[in-house]
Amino acid sequence: MKILIVGATGLIGGAVANALSANHEIISAGYSDGDVKVDLGSKASINAMFTAIGKVDAVISTAGLAGFAPFNELDDAAYDLALSNKLMGQVNLVRVGQDHVSDDGSFVLTAGILSRQPMPGSVVISMANGALESFAKAASLELDRGLRVNTVSPVFVKETMVKMGMDPRSGLSAADTAKAYVAAVTGNMNGETLDAPDFA
Amino acid sequence: MKILIVGATGLIGGAVANALSANHEIISAGYSDGDVKVDLGSKASINAMFTAIGKVDAVISTAGLAGFAPFNELDDAAYDLALSNKLMGQVNLVRVGQDHVSDDGSFVLTAGILSRQPMPGSVVISMANGALESFAKAASLELDRGLRVNTVSPVFVKETMVKMGMDPRSGLSAADTAKAYVAAVTGNMNGETLDAPDFA
Repeated sequence: MKILIVGATGLIGGAVANALSANHEIISAGYSDGDVKVDLGSKASINAMFTAIGKVDAVISTAGLAGFAPFNELDDAAYDLALSNKLMGQVNLVRVGQDHVSDDGSFVLTAGILSRQPMPGSVVISMANGALESFAKAASLELDRGLRVNTVSPVFVKETMVKMGMDPRSGLSAADTAKAYVAAVTGNMNGETLDAPDFA
Repeated sequence: MKILIVGATGLIGGAVANALSANHEIISAGYSDGDVKVDLGSKASINAMFTAIGKVDAVISTAGLAGFAPFNELDDAAYDLALSNKLMGQVNLVRVGQDHVSDDGSFVLTAGILSRQPMPGSVVISMANGALESFAKAASLELDRGLRVNTVSPVFVKETMVKMGMDPRSGLSAADTAKAYVAAVTGNMNGETLDAPDFA
């Protein structure tokens, strides 16, 4: 398969690219580097990316901005960023990308466990993640040509936890997290939320 | 209690007002009628509403716009309306309203079963509902002064189904739907999604 990975230069995206590159052709996309540049906050930029790369068999997104902050410190801009970038950026990958993906191809978006297991500071991330899970479930009913869309729900990545001085035992390595993306893109599920620990 | 009901002139909101008015003082709010007018799509309008009514003990929302349409007919405006009105309108009731609700007061927002049981045409509604459920769950961890926030997840309302020529047997009457709102506002739950059929 020819697989576009948006966010391939990130920690999870890099691990996904690693896991898939032996058997598939990877096109990496990122905000500032990769085979092609894309600004998830801009539908025009997403359009330009798909026009530049031509037909692909799958689109994986491990990207999308949304910030941690205490509820009472979240301003309008924090809500806007989560909704326009992490949520609509990934939604627009499906809206725009469906015309650039071959029959029976698939989309894998990144939500996260904070939708169902929030923590203080996660309000806008939880909100975007919950929206993404429900979006994929709903959109999966209507995609045609055998297209599929699923979300992966990662937990904290061990490497990030170590860097942040957190105890990494509750986390999952980037390489283990990547297994859920591989399962989603090579499997037959549609409209599902894949909890990363279930595939590690 | 002094309870603000946003959407009190709607089918569910009217039934909630009916159910609560024997024991509580109701302030009704709506876009075009009610004791006070409010445009959920405008944070300034929400601010003005709370300033006008003074302190309340609870805020119930049965309002918020989001439209049914096939996935491939949803334009940017359809996404914007769901996110800015049904989602952020209700989120802003909590963000703005928390300073106008008395200690141990609560918020009850309206999501809906389409977040977890979508149907063709429900993409933006499903997305907004999923976001609302996760928002309430996350925000409930951080509200202070004993404030609570929950969502009610209604199914189709029988009266609406009859009007639309649908078989109403899978639906719930507005009066039965109202029971979940009464439970949320008079109970102690926090961060929960109350499935309306569980309270009918």
